[in-house]
Amino acid sequence: MSKQEGLTVKKSDFSEWYTQIIQKADLADIRYNVKGFVVYMPWATDTLELMYKLYEEEMRATGHKKMIFPSLVSKSNLEKEEEHIEGFSAEVFWVTEAGSQHKKFEQPLALRPTSETIMYPMYSLWVRSWRDLPLKIFQSCQMWRYEGKATRPFIRGREFHWIESHNVFATKKEAENQVKEDMEMAEKVMHRKFCVPFIFFKRPQFDKFAGSVYTYAADTILPNGKRLQLPSTHFLGQKFSKPFDITFEAKDGTKHYAYQTCYGPGISRIFAAVVSINGDDRGLILPPAISPYEVIIVPIFKEETMKKVLSHSRKILSRLKESGFRVHLDDRSEYTPGFKYNYWEMRGVPIRIEVGPKDIKDKAVVVVRRDIENKTQVPESGLVKELRQTLDAVHNSILKKADSYFEGAIHSASDQLELKKALDKGGFVKLNFCSADVEGAKCADKIKEKFNAEVCGERYMGEDKPSGQCIMCGEPAKSIIYVARSY
Amino acid sequence: MSKQEGLTVKKSDFSEWYTQIIQKADLADIRYNVKGFVVYMPWATDTLELMYKLYEEEMRATGHKKMIFPSLVSKSNLEKEEEHIEGFSAEVFWVTEAGSQHKKFEQPLALRPTSETIMYPMYSLWVRSWRDLPLKIFQSCQMWRYEGKATRPFIRGREFHWIESHNVFATKKEAENQVKEDMEMAEKVMHRKFCVPFIFFKRPQFDKFAGSVYTYAADTILPNGKRLQLPSTHFLGQKFSKPFDITFEAKDGTKHYAYQTCYGPGISRIFAAVVSINGDDRGLILPPAISPYEVIIVPIFKEETMKKVLSHSRKILSRLKESGFRVHLDDRSEYTPGFKYNYWEMRGVPIRIEVGPKDIKDKAVVVVRRDIENKTQVPESGLVKELRQTLDAVHNSILKKADSYFEGAIHSASDQLELKKALDKGGFVKLNFCSADVEGAKCADKIKEKFNAEVCGERYMGEDKPSGQCIMCGEPAKSIIYVARSY
Repeated sequence: MSKQEGLTVKKSDFSEWYTQIIQKADLADIRYNVKGFVVYMPWATDTLELMYKLYEEEMRATGHKKMIFPSLVSKSNLEKEEEHIEGFSAEVFWVTEAGSQHKKFEQPLALRPTSETIMYPMYSLWVRSWRDLPLKIFQSCQMWRYEGKATRPFIRGREFHWIESHNVFATKKEAENQVKEDMEMAEKVMHRKFCVPFIFFKRPQFDKFAGSVYTYAADTILPNGKRLQLPSTHFLGQKFSKPFDITFEAKDGTKHYAYQTCYGPGISRIFAAVVSINGDDRGLILPPAISPYEVIIVPIFKEETMKKVLSHSRKILSRLKESGFRVHLDDRSEYTPGFKYNYWEMRGVPIRIEVGPKDIKDKAVVVVRRDIENKTQVPESGLVKELRQTLDAVHNSILKKADSYFEGAIHSASDQLELKKALDKGGFVKLNFCSADVEGAKCADKIKEKFNAEVCGERYMGEDKPSGQCIMCGEPAKSIIYVARSY
Repeated sequence: MSKQEGLTVKKSDFSEWYTQIIQKADLADIRYNVKGFVVYMPWATDTLELMYKLYEEEMRATGHKKMIFPSLVSKSNLEKEEEHIEGFSAEVFWVTEAGSQHKKFEQPLALRPTSETIMYPMYSLWVRSWRDLPLKIFQSCQMWRYEGKATRPFIRGREFHWIESHNVFATKKEAENQVKEDMEMAEKVMHRKFCVPFIFFKRPQFDKFAGSVYTYAADTILPNGKRLQLPSTHFLGQKFSKPFDITFEAKDGTKHYAYQTCYGPGISRIFAAVVSINGDDRGLILPPAISPYEVIIVPIFKEETMKKVLSHSRKILSRLKESGFRVHLDDRSEYTPGFKYNYWEMRGVPIRIEVGPKDIKDKAVVVVRRDIENKTQVPESGLVKELRQTLDAVHNSILKKADSYFEGAIHSASDQLELKKALDKGGFVKLNFCSADVEGAKCADKIKEKFNAEVCGERYMGEDKPSGQCIMCGEPAKSIIYVARSY
């Protein structure tokens, strides 16, 4: 934990770059000896905590209440909704016994792969009347899925950390509005605060969440051109309220099945997107809102100036703390300033302040931005104001860069040759397609087979109208869809 | 979720009182269909979140870093330290298979019953040199233990929520100081902020944590006279650093096994103590520091005054929010003010503000304390200051009441007859005892057998010197110990 080595590859070699940054920015340790499980190091843990905080604030602002549900579910409850269990059964970890005698349970318990079947039996008890609706609940917890694919820290693992909200409404319309609210929440938090751009796609009927009526999922593009699925929100209709018996008495005394939605922002995976999209050849670049430190102070001294410089740095530290900044003074004497610059650059701290004997004489400090290599001397008297403005500027520039990167990853194709070329460049490819309904499955399979790519779906709020023919089967196009290769 | 019924028993009937308050203050739902697992309702979840926040702040203030470790551990790692696995093996949930085919693992995985065996293999990789020490790490997570005893929400369950810190030091002295720091942390947070009094006992050698050299555990007394164990802190010496190979190179180049400590504040159980000790016949009483709302505003209106009263109440709400209070306006129109008084009293909100037409005319509000039934009209102009003072007063009075209750639960006995009488009254009984070392086990067994009580241990910083004879065996007393019946 005590050396700071630079990255030995550029970000253009994404796979190796990601491996190195995970280790060198102290984000995760992959040497834990259970396959698919990793240890989250302090810097990642603190970043995740800020991400959770901002997402939860938005959950509460939109009327959700926080709860804590058990992590284990009985096999019989897990299997209550057919499509749902079909979709998840391959990924379930089973708890079958306990104690030193390994006493078998009457029926196995599952580690939650998602919590529909844990929460909805309770909802059935809680929801009685229209007065109990809407019921909007979230929890922040970990999930376990026995992943078959290769795992990578934060991107895909057998234990990951998310928020899940599960809501109940009297009417279809309210439930469908919730799906929109979920997408707005992602825009507010994930895009505008975490600087992760994405598109919400209506997943084709042949690739929706197990048990939903329809699903919107946010996809982003990683620097290797592959798409990564971020939060998805699901309109469940009455597909769960029927097997789980979630009914309410309306004002007129009649009894109805409720409408439901669920939503799952995977915070640990969004963190992977933050790392991947915003980092550069020198390391992480964290948006100020989620950087454990917004400002790092590096004192510059020799033996004879140490006392003076440190004492002055501590004064600046406490002034900035009082002004509400998350700020840290790196006063370790065993490392050089140069080492510390690299150390905090690797970890993506938005602003570095350098304090040396000359600066003290000038009544100023040197302010360095992480996102661009811009260095300016700032008078101490105006420091607080200057830092606030600089943090805003850093945020805006990270966001702008991410957006422009993302825009550049959206292509279109009017025939299969163009599709192939665009996919090889990486990113999304927009095209005319026969149908996003079940009957489009065949052409989707062909895309998979010929180009090793998947149909993401129709873009939410997409403005384009389909025209001409499906580039796969030649039938009249009923949809404009996006295609991409998956991580 | 929509009715507010009062408690139908007094707190003196503690067992039934606890059952009712869990349900009527909406703290937990015990109807979840896996034995020993319950659902935490929003009010309890929000209180727990504040408790976590305050405890974690103290962890960070004492130099601990937060991390997230996997929840599963391989059988072989779990069994690496002999005494440790002996102590825990009866309580382990085993994950043995995955997927729809229920494919067996080569070796079973345990759901963490505690994380020594998860964290220490990593520590062995991280600790190399004296420069890496001290290593102070905590995580906030849930634990699973296959409890044989009857479970009760928050007091004892098969899944509970805690903080655990695991620290590594170069010297025995530093490690022993950590044990003291852990106890001070409990005093600062659990006693002074959560208003839960306790005594730290050095557990007798025959009842220490599985794998520790010695253990200090905080015991409190519930209103039924039974003791409940709260956080314990353990000096592990080199008992884990040897099997897990946690060594460091000292400044002089020599290699040494490190010294370790661990500490586990069980937040969900501490919450049970907050509920039990501070509540009264009308419901919960929450210390202001951990009440989701410090202040609840109840508007009093008829149809013709509704608009005016609500709009005025909203102004007060936003003023108080701006001043930093956690405050909520109960503007539900389907309930009467009387219903709302009971509702928020049941949930223990420290201060209620009533706003009616007359108050508006008086430019004042009525302020009511939850802990004592004190009602005063306060001019709006001085409201913020008055509320701050009142919250302090509520806190101090809750703490004082808790302390005096706790003092009253400490008795002493100079023979077995007195011991019996004191135990029947409930609480701790202080007595002369042959030995808190292994050779005292026999007398402890006799106490268990004759009086159905356990030895808590020697009091930390206890001032008394043993004198005379052990009241069980008549041998010269080497210890003053405390005895109590356990929950």
